[in-house]
Amino acid sequence: MTLKLYVDRMSQPSRALLIFCKLNGIDFEEIYINLSKRQHLSPEFKEVNPMKQVPAIMDGRFKLFESHAILRYLACAFPGVADHWYPADLYKRAKVDSVLDWHHSNLRRAVYVFSTVFAPAFGLPLNQQAAAEAEKVLLASLAKIESVWLQKKGRFLLGSGQPSIADLSLVCEIMQLEVLDSKDRERIIGPYNRVLKWIDDTKNAMEPHFQEVHLILFKAKEKLQKQRDAVGSSIPQSSRKLDLHSKM
Amino acid sequence: MTLKLYVDRMSQPSRALLIFCKLNGIDFEEIYINLSKRQHLSPEFKEVNPMKQVPAIMDGRFKLFESHAILRYLACAFPGVADHWYPADLYKRAKVDSVLDWHHSNLRRAVYVFSTVFAPAFGLPLNQQAAAEAEKVLLASLAKIESVWLQKKGRFLLGSGQPSIADLSLVCEIMQLEVLDSKDRERIIGPYNRVLKWIDDTKNAMEPHFQEVHLILFKAKEKLQKQRDAVGSSIPQSSRKLDLHSKM
Repeated sequence: MTLKLYVDRMSQPSRALLIFCKLNGIDFEEIYINLSKRQHLSPEFKEVNPMKQVPAIMDGRFKLFESHAILRYLACAFPGVADHWYPADLYKRAKVDSVLDWHHSNLRRAVYVFSTVFAPAFGLPLNQQAAAEAEKVLLASLAKIESVWLQKKGRFLLGSGQPSIADLSLVCEIMQLEVLDSKDRERIIGPYNRVLKWIDDTKNAMEPHFQEVHLILFKAKEKLQKQRDAVGSSIPQSSRKLDLHSKM
Repeated sequence: MTLKLYVDRMSQPSRALLIFCKLNGIDFEEIYINLSKRQHLSPEFKEVNPMKQVPAIMDGRFKLFESHAILRYLACAFPGVADHWYPADLYKRAKVDSVLDWHHSNLRRAVYVFSTVFAPAFGLPLNQQAAAEAEKVLLASLAKIESVWLQKKGRFLLGSGQPSIADLSLVCEIMQLEVLDSKDRERIIGPYNRVLKWIDDTKNAMEPHFQEVHLILFKAKEKLQKQRDAVGSSIPQSSRKLDLHSKM
């Protein structure tokens, strides 16, 4: 019985699962749950995940959702997965768990709001309060990754020389900012040198799968940029306010 | 070297750790980090937890924060802890992880906002939008606990006959609603019969420690009620709007 991944590549935790399986030679069937067509709300998918969210998996008859729980499960259930992804050592594992748990209330929350507020909403009314609050949490989260989670001695989180499922999950999350205007992304993430280097190191450690699984996001970025350009050219030069900062 | 718990009993994840250690006969030293005196922001505590939040632990020289990561660690590090708290079985453990991860983006987020918006804010301006949004997430979370996480066959989450660290974490979270007016708490949680029974079952399975560790919350509830009564009696009967619902 093959492992089934119920995913939409536009969702960042979906991409993390796909990359993890591809990197670790885990056979799987990719089942596309198209979020924009609201397929996650269908009665069929509710049988897989009663919370109606992607990603979810079925491994034989075993059903599981929540991407961090799935990553932990896959790392333990498939013997070919190298230890660095989710170390068996009690202390190292606890530290990876600490990053994964921290992620929920910080980076994840911020990026989610930020990208959903801005990316699809071009031309629509902006929830300024939500956006400002999300930017605050996002900047604080990036600062904590820079000063706490990334240490001098290793290229990856927690000073490790090899990536864990926490590196994978957090970098896939930050990639969601690709949908923003390049200038805005640069303004937000540019000041964090260690974060930028870590994103590159993580990408490089996961090629060619990282690039391949993110293709959909790069296409979405291109499409959004065209929309922004079109909106821009139809607005008088004096009143163009396309960069995020000016909307705050 | 004794385990050190850096906690404030007014924080729900702090209480979960204390109850867990007491129930499992784990020796520890309780170090009070008084949140209302902003002791979590002190340079000394930053050495323990650079994120400046409680709870955190030091086990010998090993430092850890994030309550779920700590609960997982304690369950694995101390051999006397019974298996049901965090099962060694891969499938059962993955399900407990799934509940713990779900908790972050649902119940925890809602209760946190809800209790911080309402409890200390009596007499202060109300952020109606945040409160309404938090109530929506809270009610949806309770409905999911009732219909998904609680099953017919067992008294605890995931149909288990004994509690896990997920029962402990979620029930401590819901207890935070004690600071609300009784009528409001009843209005919010009253319709969820399984949730109510599960809270009672969890409390009963954890006595006398559950009650003892929550004493501080019951005292806070009493104090807040007196404040509410005082505010109520100084406002003309016709314009009293003490129940939550009327503030939405």
